[in-house]
Amino acid sequence: MLLEGAHFTLPPHTPQQVGRKALAVNLSDIAAMAGIPRAAFISIAFPRNRGPDVSRDLYTGLLDTAAEFGVVIAGGDTNSWDGPLVISVMLLGEATERGPVVRSGAKPGDWVFVTGELGGSLSSGKHLTFQPRLQEALRLNEAVLLHAMIDLSDGLSSDLWHILDESHVGAEIEADAVPVSEVARGLDDGRSPLEHALADGEDFELLFTVSPEDGQRLLDNLPVETPLSRIGLIVPERRCELVDSKGHRTPLEPVGWQHRW
Amino acid sequence: MLLEGAHFTLPPHTPQQVGRKALAVNLSDIAAMAGIPRAAFISIAFPRNRGPDVSRDLYTGLLDTAAEFGVVIAGGDTNSWDGPLVISVMLLGEATERGPVVRSGAKPGDWVFVTGELGGSLSSGKHLTFQPRLQEALRLNEAVLLHAMIDLSDGLSSDLWHILDESHVGAEIEADAVPVSEVARGLDDGRSPLEHALADGEDFELLFTVSPEDGQRLLDNLPVETPLSRIGLIVPERRCELVDSKGHRTPLEPVGWQHRW
Repeated sequence: MLLEGAHFTLPPHTPQQVGRKALAVNLSDIAAMAGIPRAAFISIAFPRNRGPDVSRDLYTGLLDTAAEFGVVIAGGDTNSWDGPLVISVMLLGEATERGPVVRSGAKPGDWVFVTGELGGSLSSGKHLTFQPRLQEALRLNEAVLLHAMIDLSDGLSSDLWHILDESHVGAEIEADAVPVSEVARGLDDGRSPLEHALADGEDFELLFTVSPEDGQRLLDNLPVETPLSRIGLIVPERRCELVDSKGHRTPLEPVGWQHRW
Repeated sequence: MLLEGAHFTLPPHTPQQVGRKALAVNLSDIAAMAGIPRAAFISIAFPRNRGPDVSRDLYTGLLDTAAEFGVVIAGGDTNSWDGPLVISVMLLGEATERGPVVRSGAKPGDWVFVTGELGGSLSSGKHLTFQPRLQEALRLNEAVLLHAMIDLSDGLSSDLWHILDESHVGAEIEADAVPVSEVARGLDDGRSPLEHALADGEDFELLFTVSPEDGQRLLDNLPVETPLSRIGLIVPERRCELVDSKGHRTPLEPVGWQHRW
């Protein structure tokens, strides 16, 4: 559910971007399970006093994105009211023959991988234009046995914990191995590029774990064009640590976006 | 999607009533296809400044209703913002072995039936407390071959047209046969009780068509406790007429709630 004033503002954002993002965040959720998106159900509340332009542009964003990813818009609800623009999307996907990839399958000894680069998505506008990693998820799922996977919406330091909690394991993350985006390196706000990469959120990259054998197979023969980074290791103990180049360890706490009142 | 200020106001309505209704209108849609409701996906925007009471009461309404109808709350999205309360429900149902009942199957000669009584739902509060006609739909679907069915949300005069349009047929409705509710009879606002029954909307009763043989079977041996009324006939011509006791005919135009800017 995307809410005007909370998740976006018109302007600078456009209804077309909002339509794309509303569908894309759901596509990213389907990618996180290595699924195939099929049918979207879209409920919208249009601001009555802002006329038909908002709806035309929003639908352009929705329809273009649905076409791009082969999704049928199969139902929903359209309203007008005196409030802000609200859009809620529910997306049905289908699992491949291998079944859905879940968060609970990480095993001690697994290698931890992430796609793409992290940090600064809200500053760069990537949060509006990102490409859901559907193809990457399907190709990875064909190439190796994915033990656990999630998409990075709240930030690596938060989302990794979902895998650790549901798999009852811990992790060691190598600080130098985390792929930091150019944008995050250029931000000058007192927080380090690594902090941005770990906590900014809205990267919509994939975080997954595989056996070391499958991990090596991926590094030897990349099945996707999107960069893959091996960033750490799953451990049996229920802890999550960041390890720097000198071997210093610091706890990796969830510091990304938190649901709150 | 139910929107505070457009579809309800707190008070006089309660978050618990809103939770119930948000699910119940979807249950009614499943009933209209003689389906079995299975899994609900619920997205909510809570007003940040009104604290946890609103959410607790809303969830009470949702959970009680889900339990009452055997529905699993399987996913969704929860937000807080500075805007009004918004709730959007998507409900997945399953068809019986007979398949879903659709709107496009009405045939000339069919009898038109409606469950319960119509009119005054918004005045009486029935729009918040109505019982989705799920059991009725399933029993009717077992007893006879339902040709077309819809639930009455916008009002008989509007919703009947959905069946007529999608079935490429017309109808004659007997004014005296339309079951007018006590509440509609008691309203003193210049509109007749029949007008209320035809146009008020939010009755959430079932409107369906069956062959005359099946219609007679229903009248001879009611499969449900809810009253059934035979209110008219499907005709091949693309017109819809209201016929009074003296045989006078007037066009039945869609005069219920219309989607509008």
